[in-house]
This record gives sequence, C-alpha cells and structure tokens, in this order.
Amino acid sequence: MSEVTAVYSIITDSSSLEQKAEEIALGLTVGSWTNLPLLEQEQLKNHKGRVVTVKEVDEEKVSGKNVGELHIAFPAANFSKDIPAILTTTFGKLSLDGEIKLVDLKFDQDLLSHFPGPRFGIAGIREKLQVFDRPLIMSIFKGVIGRDLDYLLNQLREQALGGVDLVKDDEILFENPLTPLEKRVTEGKKVLDQVYEETGHRTLYAVNLTGRTFELRDRARKARDLGADVLLFNVFAYGLDVLQSLREDEEIALPIMAHPAVSGAFTSSEKYGLSHALLLGKLERLAGADFSLFPSPYGSVALDRDKVIAIKEELIKKTQIKSVFPVPSAGIHPGLVPLLIQDFGKDCVINAGGGVHGHPQGAQGGGKAFHQAIELVLSGTSFSEETAAFELQEAVRLWGWKDVVAK
Amino acid sequence: MSEVTAVYSIITDSSSLEQKAEEIALGLTVGSWTNLPLLEQEQLKNHKGRVVTVKEVDEEKVSGKNVGELHIAFPAANFSKDIPAILTTTFGKLSLDGEIKLVDLKFDQDLLSHFPGPRFGIAGIREKLQVFDRPLIMSIFKGVIGRDLDYLLNQLREQALGGVDLVKDDEILFENPLTPLEKRVTEGKKVLDQVYEETGHRTLYAVNLTGRTFELRDRARKARDLGADVLLFNVFAYGLDVLQSLREDEEIALPIMAHPAVSGAFTSSEKYGLSHALLLGKLERLAGADFSLFPSPYGSVALDRDKVIAIKEELIKKTQIKSVFPVPSAGIHPGLVPLLIQDFGKDCVINAGGGVHGHPQGAQGGGKAFHQAIELVLSGTSFSEETAAFELQEAVRLWGWKDVVAK
Ligand SMILES: [Mg+2]
Ligand SMILES: [Mg+2]
Repeated sequence: MSEVTAVYSIITDSSSLEQKAEEIALGLTVGSWTNLPLLEQEQLKNHKGRVVTVKEVDEEKVSGKNVGELHIAFPAANFSKDIPAILTTTFGKLSLDGEIKLVDLKFDQDLLSHFPGPRFGIAGIREKLQVFDRPLIMSIFKGVIGRDLDYLLNQLREQALGGVDLVKDDEILFENPLTPLEKRVTEGKKVLDQVYEETGHRTLYAVNLTGRTFELRDRARKARDLGADVLLFNVFAYGLDVLQSLREDEEIALPIMAHPAVSGAFTSSEKYGLSHALLLGKLERLAGADFSLFPSPYGSVALDRDKVIAIKEELIKKTQIKSVFPVPSAGIHPGLVPLLIQDFGKDCVINAGGGVHGHPQGAQGGGKAFHQAIELVLSGTSFSEETAAFELQEAVRLWGWKDVVAK
Repeated sequence: MSEVTAVYSIITDSSSLEQKAEEIALGLTVGSWTNLPLLEQEQLKNHKGRVVTVKEVDEEKVSGKNVGELHIAFPAANFSKDIPAILTTTFGKLSLDGEIKLVDLKFDQDLLSHFPGPRFGIAGIREKLQVFDRPLIMSIFKGVIGRDLDYLLNQLREQALGGVDLVKDDEILFENPLTPLEKRVTEGKKVLDQVYEETGHRTLYAVNLTGRTFELRDRARKARDLGADVLLFNVFAYGLDVLQSLREDEEIALPIMAHPAVSGAFTSSEKYGLSHALLLGKLERLAGADFSLFPSPYGSVALDRDKVIAIKEELIKKTQIKSVFPVPSAGIHPGLVPLLIQDFGKDCVINAGGGVHGHPQGAQGGGKAFHQAIELVLSGTSFSEETAAFELQEAVRLWGWKDVVAK
C-alpha cells in the first residue's frame, strides 16, 4: 500500500506523545477508530493513518511540555497525487494546531513516480553549457528597477564578458514598459550571441517569469519561442504545483530556476512551518526545479550551515529523480570559493551580486576573479600573490580570502 | 503616485531602526540612492521605496536587540498589479532576512481597484439563501474518507434536515473512486432538493475543489454545470492568485469558501511570516473569497481572541470591496452562540462539526439546537429550561452554555 510518511517536530501540552500522534493519524484520515464496528474497520483500514515512530526529545524538554518527533504514515488512497493534496492531508489543519513543524515528507517509490523532477537537472544543464568539471558561476543584475533597456543590456554584456555561465534577472523585476520580458529576451539574446562571437563563451540568461498564475504557461511558451534560455520563477509567491506544471509543459521545456522569495515566511521559525530541506530541497526537486536558490551560510542574511547542507543533500542525493543545482546565495565573493567548494563540491552554482559588480574592474573583473579562484582551488593550489591572477588578487584585496580548515 | 505600504514588525541587531528601514526601502527597490548622480536620482525617484514610519517598541525590547514596527511604501510602478508580485516586492527576499514579520499591506484606492473582492460577499450570499437577520449555520461532513456515496449522502441529508444553511466537504476529501466530485455534486443536489421539498428549507453544499492548479478552472466550471452551490478551496495549498482567478472567471461565478489549511505555516510564529489578519482577512478578501474560515478563539485549537477579531475586522470593515463572511471554526457547540454573536454579530457563519454530529439526536438535533440558540440570543432571552427548546436543552446538557459577560 503506497503511503507518504510525514515527520513532525512538536512541542505539546499533551501528556502523551503517543496519544497525540494517534490523534493526528486518525484526525487527518478516518476520524475515529477504536469505537468503530469491526466491519467498518475492515472497510476503512486502507485509509487509516498510522503512527510509525514517536521519539521523545529529552534534551529540549521545556517545562511542563512534551517535545518530540512524530512519524506518521498517510495512505496514498486518501489523496490525489499532487502537492496541494499531500500538503493539505499532512499539514492542512494540523498547521493550525499549536507548536508543530513539518520537517520531512518521505515518499515511497510509487508516489515518487507521480512527480517529474527536473527536466534537465545537473547533468542536463552541464550538457547545455558544456561545462563538466567545475562549479558554475552566476551573477545577478543589480539596481535595474526603473532603468531602461540599454542600461540592462550593458550590465548583461559586462557580466557575460566576465565569463559567468549564467546571469539571472532580479526577482523583483516585473513587467514594465522599459524592460518587458519580450525585449529582455530578444535583445538580451543578441548581446549574448555577440559576446559568444567575441569570446567563444556562452552565457545563459534566466528571465523572470511573472504575472497572473493562469497566464504563466503562455508567457513561458512565448519566452521560449523568443529564445529564452532559462526561466527564473518565484515559486513561493505562486505555489509548488505551478512550478510542477511549468516543468511538465512540453511546449515550455526550459530549465527552471526556483527563487526562494517569500519562502522565509514558511521556513524561518524553529517551531512552525516547513523545514528548509523539505521546502527548498525535496519539494522543489520533486516539482521540477533545475536550480534551487537559498541563503548561503556565509553572508549577512545567513542560514545555519547545517540547514544549508540539509537542503543541498535533498537536491543532490541519488534517487530515481534527477538532481538539482544548489545555488547558495547572498554574501558570496571570490575569496569564499574554497569554502563553497568544501561545502558544496563541484556540483553547485556560485552565485554573486555585489561580489561580481563590486569588483574594482567591474562585473568583467568580478566574473574573471571567480573563474581564477575556482581554478586555483580545484588545482589544489594555495592562494598567494604568485599563484593568483590579477583580478583574483584585486578581489582578495577587497574582500579577503578564506582558506579552508583541514577536514 | 500609487503605492502599497507594508507594515513589518522586526527584531534586529541593527543599532538603528531608521537605518534598517532605509536599507529595506532601497534594497527592495532601486538598490542604492545617496551615491547616485542627481540625474539618475531624478530618473529613479518614482521607483524608490520610502520609509513612512519607524516606531520603536520599547516595552518588548530584547537584550541588545532593537524591536520596532516599520512602515515602508513601495511605488506601484515597480510591480505588476497581482498578489505574487506584491508579496515578492514587499516580502520576497526580506522574508529570509532574520526576525521580521509582514503585519499588514495598505493598498491605496488605485491599487485596490485591481482586485475583484468577493463576487457575492455577505449581501450576495444572504440574497441566495434569503436569510437576512441572523448568523448562518454551517456543518461539516465527518469521517467520510474511505466511505461510499450512500454514507456521504445520508450525512448530507441528516445535516440538511437539521436546517443548516450550508454543509461543507471535509477539506481532506480529494478525488476518489467512491465519492468523486461529479457524484457528490449531482447526487448531493438531489438529496438537498428532496429536503427542500419536504421542509421548505434550502441548504447549500460547498464541494471541495481539488487537483492540479491548471485543471482547477475546468473542474470548477464543470462543477457549476452540474449544479454546485459553493466551492470549498484550500487557498494556501495553491496560492492566493489562484483564488483570485477562480473568482474572476465568469464561467465559474460560484461563491468561494476559503479554507485555512496549511496557512498556519505562515501565520503561527510571532516573529516570522504574515499576520493572520493580513492573510486570512485582507488578502483573501481582495482575492475574492466569499467566506473565510479561521480557527475560533474558543476551541482546543484556539487562536487568540485579538487575532480573531482582527481577521474579522479585515473581512467586514467598510471599503470599496464587498465584505466576506467570517467563519470562526473548531470547538463550536450551541452553548457558544451567545459568545459568537457577541464577538461576531449577525454577519458570521456559525460552523460546527462535532457540535452538530455529536448531538444526542444526531446531526438533525444539532442543527436544530443551533437554530434555537440563535433565536434565543437574538431575542434577548436568557437560557433556561423554560425558554429553551428540546434540542437546545439536550445540547446544553452535553456541552454547557456560556452566558456573555455584560459589555
Ligand atoms: Mg534580488
Ligand atoms: Mg476537516
């Protein structure tokens, strides 16, 4: 019998975690059990929620409250095989029921088969870029709200000339008369083709897909027809199921970069909401993101390192579904490349805004410095004035260099 | 210049709330300001975020941290006029930036005009039901997962015979072979027509609209064609913009009942996420719900009374947009009617599950007891064995009666 197992962390007044778990398992499925006639129990047994594990978490025990981790299995017979139904079943009214957080959802093979996962994934994106042996480098437009197309195209050109693999729109750039999606895609493509002719380097541009939900598919298809490379998408301003539908559409068939905007509203509390690893890791992967952006553990808007690593694991661990590029974001500069490669290996995207644009030689210098840093680290060479190329030295003078502590 | 003003509560390490507010206002709009050339400032001034108010909250001051309320205005020129764009602008990456909660969004008249609000609203629903002078009564199917159509139709009939105005599906009832939406609507309608013939009382049935996002419109249109009365919708398993699109669709044109499933993930924390009043009040109203369900302040899964009242105010206060029926839910029994009417007045839906089905005379008795309680309270009569009818006395014997403290 196929099922999804939800893992919750809970702080409860209930004197018995076992009893609380049983109440949840029944309350979110058949309602009641022990006082049902045997015949009805027989009829309902394939629909009854099941307590799998109840762990008391002693060390966090709060005065008078019970702290625990509950694992509860929900029969797939109860819900349609989509994320809204699964979230409503496992964390619908339960999300309103005091201090409880949905930490994980464990899908069995059968349930997994209902989800597409990324169309391209890490291998497919590498194939597209013909970059196989290093982290990718991405940079972000900076301060483009209210600016005209020339301003934006100049920035695009500078970033591409620095050799970054990807440039992404600002997630707060919506449809506007100066730089509408159509123009960004068509004119941006010309700029990137031009840079390719000049340098032999191909940069992909992730354009922000925005607007009303039911218009997104048409807009995405249009973006594709115009030559868009990648779609940037504010998943959590819409819904994970919308991401999945964009992924599944054969007429779109573009890589999708999931932005974590608004996701902090679900993930930030230790007591409520969903875990980072579930939301920005597992569910984005199931729904079909090719890239998942999340806060890096290094910047000023930092996320705890263990949470970041948990997201990464969900994105890249071997399953029947393609893996997703982790994109730790915020506070990234070339001097952090040793740390990034230690924490994420080669299969990540090194994503920088200020760390590219703020370089003394501008975005061009910034992109080059990242390339030089990656080359240095992957070749096992230490940073020094002798080993580092010019742009990297300039970057390190500004932002420093973090050598990795021996593992 | 049209704008939306976001109100945040914040706890920050930043030594200056003013400076933090300025960083947010710039960071989520034009990026930088003071070091821009005057010509560029001129070009960008209609796009720049603006700090409206900074209030220090002294009494909550935490050691070494600054606690405050920030009001920041964002020019409407920066975003398309949809909820995903507004949420991404005002609380996109900011939701990831430490202890900050989006408490309110203040829309000006111009922005408001981009949102439909409810199609029917309180007045329209009353017109449909021809009930003008009392709270509506709703009951909920109980334990229908895994049950067959006969079981469900029997429950529907019993509830309708008790005289409730509305019966809603369980929000965790999805498409399933035993009781698919098509059958629930068509067969349910026959039952309700039959009860109408027998009693002259008309009950509306809110059917759960579920499935993949991009199929919802077709399913809703089909439900309408089959004769559905009301759509129940798990807004937060999808997205507020999906609610808005369902509301706007002229081929659907049914009342929509917004269920708060999963919303606790956004609202429960005092430090993170969105306020209850914003999410379950203002935004649901703008997007077009006709009914908003939320936890009552009375039950075991209770929400603080001040939060509940704040939701209600957002749903019913006079604006250019129609008002929405507040539906305080969970823990409701007939003995709470005095409190409900004190807290919500006549313009609410009294919604019960156990408080209807658990009545000694079954769901029929439960519905009748609610009617009797409402009549008693609205006529200003005290409860006693002399004034209360039989079913109400039975209910009170079981669950008690809460007299209201003099205001
Ligand atoms: Mg940005
Ligand atoms: Mg329910």
